Formats: sequence, structure tokens, C-alpha cells
Amino acid sequence: MPLPRLAVTAGEPAGIGPELLIRLAATSLAASLVAIADRHVLERAAMRCGLRIELTDDDGSVQTERQPGTLRLRHTPLAVDEVPGRPDPRNARHVLDTLTEAADGCIAGRYDAVVTAPLQKSSINDAGIPFSGHTEFFAERAHADVVMMLASPELRVALVTTHLPLAAVSAAITTEALTRTLRIVHAELRRKFGIAEPRIAVLGLNPHAGESGYLGREEIDTLIPALDVLRGEGMHLLGPVPADTAFVPALRHHYDAVLAMYHDQALPVLKSEAFDRTVNLTLGLPFIRTSVDHGTALDLAGTGQADPASLIAAACMAMDLVARSKASA
Amino acid sequence: MPLPRLAVTAGEPAGIGPELLIRLAATSLAASLVAIADRHVLERAAMRCGLRIELTDDDGSVQTERQPGTLRLRHTPLAVDEVPGRPDPRNARHVLDTLTEAADGCIAGRYDAVVTAPLQKSSINDAGIPFSGHTEFFAERAHADVVMMLASPELRVALVTTHLPLAAVSAAITTEALTRTLRIVHAELRRKFGIAEPRIAVLGLNPHAGESGYLGREEIDTLIPALDVLRGEGMHLLGPVPADTAFVPALRHHYDAVLAMYHDQALPVLKSEAFDRTVNLTLGLPFIRTSVDHGTALDLAGTGQADPASLIAAACMAMDLVARSKASA
Repeated sequence: MPLPRLAVTAGEPAGIGPELLIRLAATSLAASLVAIADRHVLERAAMRCGLRIELTDDDGSVQTERQPGTLRLRHTPLAVDEVPGRPDPRNARHVLDTLTEAADGCIAGRYDAVVTAPLQKSSINDAGIPFSGHTEFFAERAHADVVMMLASPELRVALVTTHLPLAAVSAAITTEALTRTLRIVHAELRRKFGIAEPRIAVLGLNPHAGESGYLGREEIDTLIPALDVLRGEGMHLLGPVPADTAFVPALRHHYDAVLAMYHDQALPVLKSEAFDRTVNLTLGLPFIRTSVDHGTALDLAGTGQADPASLIAAACMAMDLVARSKASA
Repeated sequence: MPLPRLAVTAGEPAGIGPELLIRLAATSLAASLVAIADRHVLERAAMRCGLRIELTDDDGSVQTERQPGTLRLRHTPLAVDEVPGRPDPRNARHVLDTLTEAADGCIAGRYDAVVTAPLQKSSINDAGIPFSGHTEFFAERAHADVVMMLASPELRVALVTTHLPLAAVSAAITTEALTRTLRIVHAELRRKFGIAEPRIAVLGLNPHAGESGYLGREEIDTLIPALDVLRGEGMHLLGPVPADTAFVPALRHHYDAVLAMYHDQALPVLKSEAFDRTVNLTLGLPFIRTSVDHGTALDLAGTGQADPASLIAAACMAMDLVARSKASA
């Protein structure tokens, strides 16, 4: 059977990304792994990890098996040699080149999915390039409207707002934001997860989901009317559910995903129970994209000691989604 | 050895409280349980549970053992017979009488701790009595400044703000609120939990604890300066810690309690991992008070089917705190 073709970007060359990619390749993961990276960066990372790696230029052909320690390569040249722990803005363009290849390659069908290792946003900004993150880059490249989802094997959480000061959250929970987000989450649970009739638990904004208006009016004024409209279109929505009851084991059987209103309402639950199995997914893109859920760990870079668990989890999630979306297509 | 004397209030007589109290008494819990309730309410609850109960008027004497199914009683008469599922405001005064006896009895040393079953706030308000909850009632009765803590055997979380609309949270996180709360939590971890040098992880208000000001300024303007002052007084404080990393298993060894800025930042974690072992504690009172962490469940009242797990957990936590505070006194 043909293996799923995963484009894996190495991220910031001075971070732990290249080493994680080598450790991923060392596993027996049944995927065709195509590194989008500089050949020499990977060779140096392999040395630092004390691992042998066999790099082959990617010819786009289908693989039916892969030996541990082998990796296909889409060589994307670096500007200046990396110094682990010290990102160099002169390599910012290189990092973006890897993302462009990954996105364009997925859109063109050369890859089934992209898995991203962490990059250093500040280093790209220091190069004078406006850049706010992988997610926004891919959204722009694909002209897509996207939603951030964090998922473990046990729990999927999508967010209406993401990296926003807490004081700005209430104003950002508009009918438009809720509707837009729920439509994307619903469509993607069908398309990418292969769930025919997705059930989504929508958290309230306020404690106890506002307790009938005693603890805030957003549920009554905005959430409930928006959910009712979408229910009228056939969506299966629970809620608004109080955040502190939504994750109780007995309730989890009743939904396929949770929609949280903001970052700290749900991510602490996910990370406390599945720290290194939590994967960042971008919903809404015309392709599958998963990511590690950690940063470049500059203090660890170069030591060969970084833990690849999150990148492995991201690759496994991508493989699962490739299989699910092909089965439901 | 003398058993700890726990005053247990039955809460709303038309709710599940009396039945939970009967089921608690049926366990072999090694505590002297003194029900603060109406005798006939308890007798009827025992019938509905299909359990025999032996009620003895409390004479204040020390017990060294207790047989399952036995309960001491501080009879507190009802105004009108209860109808399960239908709270009657004419019994509001009775409910408050049980709380008064529990608080005054603890202050006078008649009980070592109070454990409360759920009451129906709205029914007390319907009787024309201003009342906002157990916690506030006890605080006023004891002239104390209090903090709400939720705790499981694995995790303790105190809150700076509790039942507040999300949009009001940022403004409520003042230097005064932080300082006041941390002083109470710190003192109580020493006094009631017997922890000589408590370590408290303080969560940031914003996602990623504000990410150096990019995602909100409260950490820089308020939290960090307040923590520094308290550190100068010798408190061992971590943070501000991002909420989504604070609960990761590897970090839990580094603190004795978490201080969360608001309700939905931490309670979802606690309840998802320890739903029926989560206990509500009131810190700052001159006595030990624990409570179930659920409501009156009016739809279940009268069926004898309510699950006593949370009341049992609350009683166990109270016993543990009695032992700890005696050991450290």
C-alpha cells in the first residue's frame, strides 16, 4: 500500500527542529517522510544526535515502505551555517522558503500533508519580514480562512480566539466570529476527520456559562442565538456548556470536539492530560497541516537531547487524517 | 484515639443533601459525624435510600469509634415538611439555622470542622433574605476575609476571582486582590495543611502569561511587582506561569498549590481529572470548612439515587485537615 507522503519542515535551523526531524526519521513510522530542509543542516543534526541518516533526494515517487533512519529530502539551501541556539535573521528567507514549498506542494498534490517543526518568529521579524506565524502564513498562501485546533488522541479543542489578551476576549466573541469558526470546524470534522455528523460542545464564555445571565450576558445575547441559527442549518451543537463540566469523563462521549472561547479555557486541560501528545492542527486549509505544540527550545538546540514526542505525535496525527480524509472522500 | 468531630449540614431539605448525609453515615468513615439537620428529614431520607440509620442526640462527648449507619444529631427543626425537588422558602430560616450552628459550634470548639451539603440559594433569596452563598455566610459570621480553594487529592487551586463575568476579570486583578489572596493562601497552607514553607504557582492572567507584554500587560504592570513584594517577605512563589504549562505533570512537583486568576482558568483541569473527588474549601476562616462541589440536583432528590462521592471526599478532606492542623499546631 502506498505510504502517506508527509512534508516535514525543519523550522528554525538554529532550534531543535532539525534534530527532532532526525529522531522522527529514526522511528519506524510507516510514512513517506520528505524533509523540506537544508541537507547539511540535517547531516549536522544527525551527528549531534549520534544517529546515522540516509538522505535521498525526493523524486516524488510513491513509497510502499520506509526503513528507519531514511529520509527523503527536498533540499532548500540555507544562507549561512546555523549556530545552535542563536537564530540568524539571514536565514529567515530560507525558513519561509521551506514553508512555501510545503504549502505549494500540498496544494499541488505532491504531499498529502505538512508537519511543521518550530520556527523562531522573532528572527523572521528581525529580518524585516512581517510574519505572525505558520498558521497565518499558510492561510495567506492558500487564501483560506482558518481555525486553530489542538488535539490529543482523546480530545479535540478548537478556539474562537487564540493569542489575545484576556481583557479583549469578550468583545471578540461576536456572532460572526462564532458562526465563521463553527462552520469551519464542522466542515473540517467531516472532511478531514471523516465524521459524518459531527457533534460539537460549545463552551460558555463566562463561569457556569453565565448562569442564566447572573454571571455575564454574552451567552444570552450572542452565543445562544448564534448556536440556534446553526442548529437550524442542521449542526449538532451542545451548549453553551460550562467549561468546568465540559471535560468531565461522562460528557466526553457526547461530542467529537469542543469549541472553546479562548486559550486558557481549554488548553490547560488538554496539556495537563496529554502534554507531549498534543498536536496543533490548522483547520480550514485546503490541505492537512499538523505541528508540534512547543517552541524552538534554543537552550536545548545542539545538544541532541530534545524530545521528539510532540513531532512524532504530529506526524501520527497527520497520517491518521490522511487516512480518514481518503476514506471519506 | 478520639475521632475528629465533623459537623455536617444537610443543606436544602428538598435537595439531595439529606440523602447524601445518610449515605455518608452508612460508610465506615472514622469520624464522629454530627448532623446539623432536622431529625425527621433524615429519617425520611434514610427510608428513601433504603438504609437503616441510628440517630443519637449529640452530647458533645468524644467518640473513639463509630459504627456504620450511626449518626449523632444536632436537631434543628424544619418549618414545613420537605417535598423533594421543590424547595420551600419557608424553610430558608431553617437552612440558615444549620449554618449558624455549624459556624458557631466550630468557633466555640464543639466541632473540629464543618462539611456542607448543597443548599438552594434562590430559595433563601425568595424568602426575602439577602444571601449569596455558604462561603460569604461563614465569612461574615466569623468576621473573616476568605479565599475559595478547590482541591482534589492531587491538586489544590485557589482563586483570586470566582463568580465574575469574564469581561470583569482583568479589572479585578489588582495589587490589593493579589496580595490579600496570596497572604491568605500562604497562611492557610501553613496552618491548615501543615506545610511549613508553601510553594505557590501563580498563573498569568493572559495566554502564555502575557508573553513579555505581547499578549497583555497585566503581568508586567500588576502581577510581577506584586509577587516580587511578597517574595521579599519570604513567600516562595513561582510565576506568573502560563496556565497551559502549569498543570503539566513535570511541573506539579514544584508547588503545593496553584493560584488561578479566574474560575475557568483552572477548574476545568481539576474537574476533568477528579470530578467526584473535587472538594470546595474556604480558606481564611478560623475553622476548617469543606463542601461538596455540586448543587442540590433537584431532579434527583427523593429518588435515593444521588451519588455521595463528593460529600465523602469533602468529609475525608476535612478529616485530613483536622489531623494536619493538629499536628502542626
